[in-house]
Amino acid sequence: MWTALAQDGQARRGQLQTGHGVVQTPMFMPCGTYGTVKGMTPAQLKDVGTQVLLGNTFHLMLRPGSQIIADLGGLHEFMQWSGPILTDSGGFQVWSLGELRKISEQGVVFRSPVNGDKVALTPERSIQVQRQLGSDIIMVFDECTPYPATPAQARESMELSLRWAQRCHVEHREQAPAEDRSLLFGIVQGGMHSDLRRASLEGLQALDFPGYAIGGLSVGEPKDDMQRVLAELLPHMPVAKPRYLMGVGTPADLVMGVSLGVDMFDCVMPTRNGRNGYAFTSSGTVKIRNAKHRTSDEPLDTQCGCYTCQNFTRAYLHHLDRCGEMLGAMLMTQHNLHYYHHLMARLRESIETGTFRTLATSLFEGWNIPDESV
Amino acid sequence: MWTALAQDGQARRGQLQTGHGVVQTPMFMPCGTYGTVKGMTPAQLKDVGTQVLLGNTFHLMLRPGSQIIADLGGLHEFMQWSGPILTDSGGFQVWSLGELRKISEQGVVFRSPVNGDKVALTPERSIQVQRQLGSDIIMVFDECTPYPATPAQARESMELSLRWAQRCHVEHREQAPAEDRSLLFGIVQGGMHSDLRRASLEGLQALDFPGYAIGGLSVGEPKDDMQRVLAELLPHMPVAKPRYLMGVGTPADLVMGVSLGVDMFDCVMPTRNGRNGYAFTSSGTVKIRNAKHRTSDEPLDTQCGCYTCQNFTRAYLHHLDRCGEMLGAMLMTQHNLHYYHHLMARLRESIETGTFRTLATSLFEGWNIPDESV
Repeated sequence: MWTALAQDGQARRGQLQTGHGVVQTPMFMPCGTYGTVKGMTPAQLKDVGTQVLLGNTFHLMLRPGSQIIADLGGLHEFMQWSGPILTDSGGFQVWSLGELRKISEQGVVFRSPVNGDKVALTPERSIQVQRQLGSDIIMVFDECTPYPATPAQARESMELSLRWAQRCHVEHREQAPAEDRSLLFGIVQGGMHSDLRRASLEGLQALDFPGYAIGGLSVGEPKDDMQRVLAELLPHMPVAKPRYLMGVGTPADLVMGVSLGVDMFDCVMPTRNGRNGYAFTSSGTVKIRNAKHRTSDEPLDTQCGCYTCQNFTRAYLHHLDRCGEMLGAMLMTQHNLHYYHHLMARLRESIETGTFRTLATSLFEGWNIPDESV
Repeated sequence: MWTALAQDGQARRGQLQTGHGVVQTPMFMPCGTYGTVKGMTPAQLKDVGTQVLLGNTFHLMLRPGSQIIADLGGLHEFMQWSGPILTDSGGFQVWSLGELRKISEQGVVFRSPVNGDKVALTPERSIQVQRQLGSDIIMVFDECTPYPATPAQARESMELSLRWAQRCHVEHREQAPAEDRSLLFGIVQGGMHSDLRRASLEGLQALDFPGYAIGGLSVGEPKDDMQRVLAELLPHMPVAKPRYLMGVGTPADLVMGVSLGVDMFDCVMPTRNGRNGYAFTSSGTVKIRNAKHRTSDEPLDTQCGCYTCQNFTRAYLHHLDRCGEMLGAMLMTQHNLHYYHHLMARLRESIETGTFRTLATSLFEGWNIPDESV
């Protein structure tokens, strides 16, 4: 399914075959939570370079409901996205509900934040819902280990996730429709403990998944911990399978991940930060609401070829932001996604030409690395 | 400036030469209040058939300020709209402030709803601001006569507007920059009183404006009154000049206006109603939030060629509306503007072929005419 094309240090250049076409890795996936990347049409997503969209099982099962999407031909048809779709399992969102959910061996029961209904999500149900959505890449249902966690807590959580992964694997294989082309990815857990991460990986490898994700990072831990966990885990991950770092991150995080051998990323940062008036540019982050942009006839990023930068000044974007105009959020989102995708395209090219290290070290000189908590 | 091409009954087909190209009439202008039609990129505006945009002097002089726009090359450059722009004078918005403004012979002093500053707007200042914006069609600064008004009140208001129109005319002519191509339109007032409307028109005609607008309608009066005022006024308006009915209206209002000889319209209905989940379609208005659309695989309008109708189901639009997703407002706005522009294109064609009456009477059979107060 995943084919290596080139390597530079630990950084990998490859391509992933999915039910909706071939994807070039390493790559970044925008979040289309409710069946839409906020403020972007599918045509605009293609224009900024999006290859794969992420859909959220938790959100879509509550609104509009996965059966309705299935009846309308699946998520691709529903939202008119012709490229591949990866769906998360709902595990992370359910876990994020805190007091509103109860976790047992069987699965999770929670109160719908939309209407208060009692809803159950199990490994089997998560796979069924992702199948109804018509996902190309299906994620196992897991428990995200809290941060911080004692080794005992992290082990207990990781082992529960492993048992759930086995149930997902069975459900996915045994209930496969004819000509099933969906890929089921396992998710490595284990908190900040490298021995637990390795045990998780070994448990998952016994099931021979076509791809492996790394979950439970970017959950509040220091950056150094994330980097250490990745550096210790990645050399043990199977070389022939794609590696997906979930929910990460800043542009610098992406470069760090690629340098260690990660192939896939997703994060709400480019879209959410864009809506909130923060742009990623070749010279660092720009807070467009800042008064210094009020009369600026410069584009957001002089080195950027996106629709926003080719047409509009910072003064105009500043004005739209001040007035709370939708177009501001739309144009900032387009720019940020273009920035992320273009960054990944440059990393891919540098791996092919053996210049990854040079590019990576040159990228963020003088940058103020943006805060995730925008 | 305006050239007649065809006539069918009182309905007129023509074209208007502006500083930014030729415009086919009759036509509809979307409202770009703060230098953006909410939720639409300039590229999308072109796609749905927009010829002329309306900009709001009142809003733009408060945010970001007309001097800033002038310094950045004018409103066309600021918002990247290459077609013609018509600006209102700010009179209607100032009048709408109610207790927050004081009207005198000199002009209007009001409190900025943005920051509470005391701001003065006079006929001269309004023309200066519209010039700074770089407007192609500039409107005289007028007072909108309240509804209801006694004949004495309506006369007093109309005569004030006439004196202001004269001052605008002087300011526009005497302060004209080299190679000025902007057109200054007069605005007929006079409330619901046809004798006052005629007196207003005569006073304006003495100044020989290149176009005449009809103001003070769609301000709360019954539809019959609006139609009566138009039917009594329009036969007296100069044949060789464009006629612009301000702030109107529903699709049926537009057809009625064209049937009486109106050439230009503007209204927030297609954009505001779209954002609020109301679509104009060939079979009437559709409230997309209605539960019956939850599973509908039909487009908004089976007879529509817009991006929204060519790609998305009512079920998807219903879902986006329920989730408060920006894309819902974007797609509904695109559809509604396409509907309005396509309606005007059909009316233009029918006038050319002498089939206007047939088309007009067939258009709204079985329609529920939408309420303006959405």
